[in-house]
Parts: sequence; structure tokens; C-alpha cells
Amino acid sequence: MGASSPAQRAVLERAHHGGGWLLSGIICINILILGCALVSGSAFNSVAITAVHRQIFLIVLLVLTMLWMLFYTAVTSRMDQAIVFKDSHAGPVWLRGGFLVFGLLSLLMDIFKIATYAGYLHCDSAVKVAFPVVQAVFLIVQTFFLWTHAKDCVQLHTNFTRCGLTLTLSTNLVVWMAAVTEESLHQTEIPDLYVNVSHKMYRANYGDKCKCSHSACDTFKEAFYYLYPFNIEYSLFASALAYVMWKNVGRLVEDHSHPHVKFRPKEVCFGPLTGILLVVAGLATFIMYEVDILTEDEEKRNLALLIHFVMNIVIVSLMSLATVIGCIVYRLDHREHVSEKNPTRSLDVGLLVGSSIGQFIISYFSIVALLATGARGYLNALNLSWALLTVLQLGLQNYFIIEGLNREPFHVMQEAALHTNAHAYTEMSTVIESNRSTYQLTSTKNKLNWKRRILKEVSAFLLLANIILWIMPAFGARPQFDHPTEIKFYKFTMWAAIVNIGLPFGIFYRMHSVASLFEVYLFS
Amino acid sequence: MGASSPAQRAVLERAHHGGGWLLSGIICINILILGCALVSGSAFNSVAITAVHRQIFLIVLLVLTMLWMLFYTAVTSRMDQAIVFKDSHAGPVWLRGGFLVFGLLSLLMDIFKIATYAGYLHCDSAVKVAFPVVQAVFLIVQTFFLWTHAKDCVQLHTNFTRCGLTLTLSTNLVVWMAAVTEESLHQTEIPDLYVNVSHKMYRANYGDKCKCSHSACDTFKEAFYYLYPFNIEYSLFASALAYVMWKNVGRLVEDHSHPHVKFRPKEVCFGPLTGILLVVAGLATFIMYEVDILTEDEEKRNLALLIHFVMNIVIVSLMSLATVIGCIVYRLDHREHVSEKNPTRSLDVGLLVGSSIGQFIISYFSIVALLATGARGYLNALNLSWALLTVLQLGLQNYFIIEGLNREPFHVMQEAALHTNAHAYTEMSTVIESNRSTYQLTSTKNKLNWKRRILKEVSAFLLLANIILWIMPAFGARPQFDHPTEIKFYKFTMWAAIVNIGLPFGIFYRMHSVASLFEVYLFS
Repeated sequence: MGASSPAQRAVLERAHHGGGWLLSGIICINILILGCALVSGSAFNSVAITAVHRQIFLIVLLVLTMLWMLFYTAVTSRMDQAIVFKDSHAGPVWLRGGFLVFGLLSLLMDIFKIATYAGYLHCDSAVKVAFPVVQAVFLIVQTFFLWTHAKDCVQLHTNFTRCGLTLTLSTNLVVWMAAVTEESLHQTEIPDLYVNVSHKMYRANYGDKCKCSHSACDTFKEAFYYLYPFNIEYSLFASALAYVMWKNVGRLVEDHSHPHVKFRPKEVCFGPLTGILLVVAGLATFIMYEVDILTEDEEKRNLALLIHFVMNIVIVSLMSLATVIGCIVYRLDHREHVSEKNPTRSLDVGLLVGSSIGQFIISYFSIVALLATGARGYLNALNLSWALLTVLQLGLQNYFIIEGLNREPFHVMQEAALHTNAHAYTEMSTVIESNRSTYQLTSTKNKLNWKRRILKEVSAFLLLANIILWIMPAFGARPQFDHPTEIKFYKFTMWAAIVNIGLPFGIFYRMHSVASLFEVYLFS
Repeated sequence: MGASSPAQRAVLERAHHGGGWLLSGIICINILILGCALVSGSAFNSVAITAVHRQIFLIVLLVLTMLWMLFYTAVTSRMDQAIVFKDSHAGPVWLRGGFLVFGLLSLLMDIFKIATYAGYLHCDSAVKVAFPVVQAVFLIVQTFFLWTHAKDCVQLHTNFTRCGLTLTLSTNLVVWMAAVTEESLHQTEIPDLYVNVSHKMYRANYGDKCKCSHSACDTFKEAFYYLYPFNIEYSLFASALAYVMWKNVGRLVEDHSHPHVKFRPKEVCFGPLTGILLVVAGLATFIMYEVDILTEDEEKRNLALLIHFVMNIVIVSLMSLATVIGCIVYRLDHREHVSEKNPTRSLDVGLLVGSSIGQFIISYFSIVALLATGARGYLNALNLSWALLTVLQLGLQNYFIIEGLNREPFHVMQEAALHTNAHAYTEMSTVIESNRSTYQLTSTKNKLNWKRRILKEVSAFLLLANIILWIMPAFGARPQFDHPTEIKFYKFTMWAAIVNIGLPFGIFYRMHSVASLFEVYLFS
């Protein structure tokens, strides 16, 4: 395999590209759009299509997916020659780790759901209990399946496996759509901005027809709505993993393992130090915010919002500043771009840009609403600055990360300098580059080049800042709903839809950025 | 250039891949999301953001895009070495032809708009006249620009050109969003299902504050709303052309012109004949439908709907049947898949699948609504069958077209048989293939192979059937609004949004299919 030319390999790969990928794509589109129609139908017309219809559809999808997964684990993956190659880039540890954590929290959600709806069994549909039971089993099967097989490049049963993987992908996306819609509807039931009231309202609505048979019902119901965002994240992660596996079906990769790069945290200090300070300060204000925002005292709530906005503005400004410095260093530094094609890298970049759109949408909708209403009052002015700075920060950070990932790692350059430089296409550049590489080779033994040092400091700082920006929304900060301007401007339903679709992507974006920045740190 | 290896070329292309594409992507996302927020803001909150704000934003975008286009035409494209290569696959004649026709109709729309709003100048904002004026100029500049430069692979000013092209892309998409929203809102003003009433309503609404100063106002206003769908199509076409140009910036292609394939219509007869019959029958029922649907007599309208549904079911069933036959022939026929990478081909396939999603969405939403309400009455039953068969037909047709485009054309195989077969990777397959090719070489001189014959008949039939399925919605058939089930189920606003977003994509899909089927016909 090692000696085959790229052209020959392309032909071989093409030969594996039968009708399977086409058929699997068609299946995926059909399930997705049918799911979309069903979910919207049950949201907009609760008379003809109820939650029960939607849940029956989901149960069918979940069972089918599980059957395929069991078949794959028991038959396909056990066959000889089925999995000769593994894609070392696929399913990195952070993704699978996050996947496991969110899976556990989703399992908890399902247990709470089962406990809640079991109390209504005497007067409500049994499907409402059956669905979380099936979903809990599915969570266990899927987490095990993707944990063990995420890196597989399957060579046998390719067409069937492709269809199975798009079934997994579309099932997870339909579950995601259903969860987002349910969450939005649940929030829309809130008559004003107090969460406490909503809970009482909800209980009252439900209670007049059908009473829960055990006393813990309310606690469970309150608890499982807090766990919804984790289930939403879990579905997104599972979709990403299934998509990578789908891309890897029939792929022939050479088994070059990840170049081992030593992580030496002592190399840098200023970036991590500022970053840790920022995380601690962010955590402190976040806890204050979470406590104060639930009080009935309007002044206290406004103060909490003020502190939250100021803290976020400080974080985002510092991040933008750091990223600008990093981008300038890239301009000065003339490392070669990686020319090798790498599907996982392309997917990484695609996911990064795609998930950043969620945060972009929320920020731009805020900007338009605030500008149109004149941004009167200090809270509106702060909110506007936050949104503007976030847009700037997202653009800069995307640029920084993608540039960083696309450059030849320094350690690879060092190795290349020892061999003849095969890639350089003019003599001139070869000479320049090998000179530079040799220089780095000698210098890095003792101390880092100042450019590398700055890049490492910047990535470490951005990494920590992204962690705090991840923690705040992931653990419940929703200034978008605590501050009334956008709600009044767009009406509650629309604003809830925008935030509930955009924010999970935003959270995913921050986690993904942390992982990518870690890679940029290692490669610099 | 001819002698350079693929690897070397990849490096060269990479070298051109500076920060430009990243920056241009970030610009594109920002304009699009800001545009989306503005358009939704003006649709959902007409107090703070009016149509005037949106139009000012659009004028700024249009002027900036025009300035860049003029700069490109006057400076960049005139420079030495700027356009050494042309992509012969980009901007095919059907796309540029449709683009020109839709451009002319959009120009007409703008002229009507100017005439209408000029009559309100004494009491309404001057921006409402300024916007169509600017848009008319923009239409001329852009149509000229894309007509002459669609095939360019620019080698100079690459970063600036990339940003200019994404600016063009996002401007067109924002214009598209604005047009779709305006069209939806206009239709939502209709209090019941009669178009005539809406017009009177609209006039009444506007008339009480501000009267038109000339008498032709109403005629013009009625006329320009009929031309909206063409403007929507025009924006989609322009976006597709700009995207291909953006992909081609800095690309080094060998200037192999399209292999000349002779179009001999006498080769086939059954397919085209049935197709033409279908087109004629479809046109006849379409005209009847358009006349009868506007009458006040409910029975006559139901009859018109009945005939329209039956005709569509017949067309779609015959198409599905023909496609199944075609797919079976593909199974029997073992032509090699094309292994060469071709960005325009990938884009073609992407556009085909992407635009089919529009029709998929409408059909699935219909299916869910009809099934949930029980599909009572013959009209509902027919509508349901139509939707189900459309889903089937779309899936099959996508499969047929993509398979057809991905196979090595027969004439190329004949040439290859004369040389040594460089691509075959085992001796076995070389022998088989050259045998087969030689056989075809001798046989095709006189008569077509039966497999080729069937494929040609099927593609010709599908081509003509797609034409009639294009004509009907493009020239105003909207059974989705003439039949009340879905409107009642999803509420009018939501259903109007689904149809107005989905249908333009559906129309684009039919046109695109016609072009792709023509290619499949030639390659078979």
C-alpha cells in the first residue's frame, strides 16, 4: 500500500464509491425533511399531530438505528479485512470525552423523564414513558458504538454501512430538532421573565386534567428541563462523529500515527496566567449573576446583568486584542501551508465555521434590534458593544485558528530540513526554507523562537478564554432572555427560536475552538 | 504547464490559497447574517425597521458590488497574465441563457416599480424610487459582468477578487432573501384565496393615506408582483455563477476544451415522442387550470384542481417508471466511473441535490398535513398521491442524473481504447474494458448499442418531462395556495413561507435537471 501512487489510490477509492453514498444521501435527506415536517407540524398544529405521533416516529428511527449498530458491531466489524485502516484524525479525545459526558447527562434526563411520566401513566399516553426508555437504551448503545468505532475506515458491506451511518446521522439530527423545538415551546410558555412563575403555570395547566400519582413529579420535571441543553449537544456531537465515519467508509489511509508532540507547559507563562485569571474572574461573576438574576428585585437583577455584560466585554476585547497580535505574527512568519489533503481537517474547519454561525446569528439579531430601538440606557449600550465585539472576535478567531491549522507544524519542518525538501517548487524557496528550518532546529533546542513563543502564548490565552465563554452559556446563563429589548423587538416566539437554535451551536463552537486551539498550540 | 505533475500543481494552487479565501468567507457570512437579521427585523417589526432601512442597506451593497465589478472589468481583467486559463465547464450556456432571460424580466419589474413609486413620490420616501433605479443599473452591470467573465480563472489580485466575488454572492443572496420575504408578506395580505380581492385590499390600505398621482399605478403594481418570481430566480442564478467564479480564482486548469459530441436527434424516437406528447398535454391542462382557477365558481375551481392534480400524477408516474428502467440499465452496464476531480461537476451535483431539497420540503410538509387530517375527499387523496410520487421521482431522478454524470462518456471510452489504457489498475479489467470498447467502436458506427439506446431514450423523455414540470410553477400555477388543506393545517404565514422558499428552488431544480439530462444524453 505504501508504494502506490496518489493517482492509483484515487482510482481505487473511486471504485469503492458505488451507488451507496448516493443512496445513503437520499435516505438522509428524506428522513431529515420528513422529521422536520413532523416536528413543525406538531409544534404549529397540536390538534392533528401530537407529541405522541412525533415520539412514535422517533422510536421507530431509534430502534432501526440501534438494530443497524448491533449488526455492525456483531457482524461487519468482526469480519476479516473489514477494518484494515483506522483514521487517526477521526474522533479525537476531546470530542469523544465531551460525547461521553453529555451522554451521561442525557441518560439522567431520560431517567427523570421516565420517573415524571410514569406518574401520569393512568391518564396520559404510555408512549410518553416508552420514548425515554427507548432513548435511554439508544444512548447506551450509541455511545458504546461511536466510542469504539469512530476511527474505523470500513472496507466491507460499504453500501449497507453508508446507509446505516446516514440513518444514525439523520436520527440524531431529528432528535436534535425535536429537542430544540420542545425547549423553545417550553420557554414560550413563560408568561413573563420569571422562571419560577412558569413552573407554577405549567403545573397548573397540566394539573387540571391529569394529576401526577407521586409527589416527586415536580422536582423531576424541573430537573429534566435543565438537562435539555446537554441532550441537544449530545445529538450534535453524535452527528459529527457519524458524519466523519460516513466520509471514511471505503477510504484507504496510510496508518501514519499522529506525530508525537510533547506538551511542555513551562514554555509559556504570560498567556496561561492571564487566561486563568480571566477564568476565575469569569466564574465569580457568573455565580453572582446566576444567584442575583433569580431575585424579584429589579435593581439587583439589572446590576447582575451589568456585571455580566461588562465581564463579557472585557473577555471578548482581550481575546480580540490577543488574536490581532497572533495574526500579525502569522503575517511576519512565512511557514509553508500544508498541501496534503485531509478530510478530517476539512471537516474540523467546516464545523468550526458552521457552528460559529450560531453565535453570529444571535449577535447580529441583537445588533439590529438594539440599533433600531436606539440603544437607550446603559444596559442596551453595553449589550450592543458586547454583540459588536463578539462578531469581531468570532471573525478574528476563525481566521487565527484556520491559519494555524493549515500551516506546516514547526516540528515537521525540522524533520523535513534533515531530508531533501521534496515539496519546494523553486530552488529559491528551498534554500530559504532549509536555512530557516536549520536555524530553528538549532535554536529550539534551548529556547523558543520569539514568533513561536508569541503564537503559543496567544493560543494558550485564547484556549482558556474560550473555556470560560463555554462555561457561562452551557451552565445556564441566558442574558438573551433576562434582558427585554430583543424579546420585545422580535416577539418572544421568534427570539426564543433564534436563541435556542443559535446558542447550542455557539456552545459547540467554544468547545471545538478549545480543541482546535490546543492543536494550534502544539503545532506552533 | 502540460508537463507538471498533479502534486506540483497542488502545491502551486496551495500557494495561491492565501488568507484571501478565508477573509472573503468571513465577509460573506457577515453580510449574509446581517442581511438576514435586517430582513427578518423589517418583516416582524415594521415599526422600528421599515422597508426604507432595508432598501438603504441593499443600495449600499449593490453600489459596492457594482464598483468592484467595474474595477474588475476595467483593471484586473485587462492586466497581462490575469486570465490565462478559462474553465470550460463553468457558466454553461443554459445557465447564462436563463440568467439573461430572468435578468431582462427583472429589469422589467424594476421599470414597473419605478413607474409605480414615482406616482407616490409626493407623499412617500424617495428611497422607494431610488432602490429600483439602482437595482436596474445593477442588473445591467451584473448581467454583462457574469456573461463575459463567468469562465475566468483569475491569477492576479486573487485576494481582492475573492472578496469581490463573495460580496457579489452575498449581495445576491440578500436580494433573494428580501424578495422572498416581500413576496410572502404580499401573499399573506390576501384575506382569503382570491387574488382579485387582495389587490383591492392592498389598494385600499395604501389609498387612505397617499394617493398615486397617475392612473396607471394599479396596473403597474399588479404587473410587478407577477414578475417577482423571476427576480428570485435571477438572484439564485447569479449566486451560482459567482460561487463558481470564486472557486476558480487562482485555479490552474489545463485548457482542454469540452469534447465535441455530435447531437444526433434521429438516434432516438420513442422517448422524445412521448415527452413531446406529455408537454403538449401538460400545456393544455395548465392553460385550462390558469383560466378556471380564477373563477368564483367553486365547482369549476375544484374541477381545474382535479385536472391539474391528475395531470401531474400522470407525468410524475411516467417519469418514475422511465427512471427505474434507466437505473436498471446502469446496473447491467459496467462503465468506469470518472476519477478526475472536477470542481464544476461537484458543484453541479451539489446544486442539483441542494435545489431538490426545496421540492422535497414542500412535498413532505404536504404529506404530513394530508395524512394528519386523514386525506378526506378525492382532491386530498390526489394531492397526497402527487406528493408521495414526487418524493419518489425526485429521489430516483437525482440518482439517475448523478450516476449518469459520474460515468466515463462512451465516446471517451472509444478514444481510450485506441491508446494504452493508463487508468486501469489490474490487467484483468484492462482486457475486459478494451474488448468492450472495441466492440462498441465497431458497432456504434452504424447502430447504437441497445443499452445506450435505452439510456438516451430515458434521458430525452425525462428532459422533456422536466420542461413541463418547470413551465407550470414558473408561469404561475400555485395549487399549494388554491387548495386549502395545508393552509388550514400550518396557518397561512408558515405555509406561504415554506412554499415561497421551497418553490423557487424547485423551479431552479427543474431547469438544472434539464441541463444535466442533456449532458447525460450526450454522454450515453
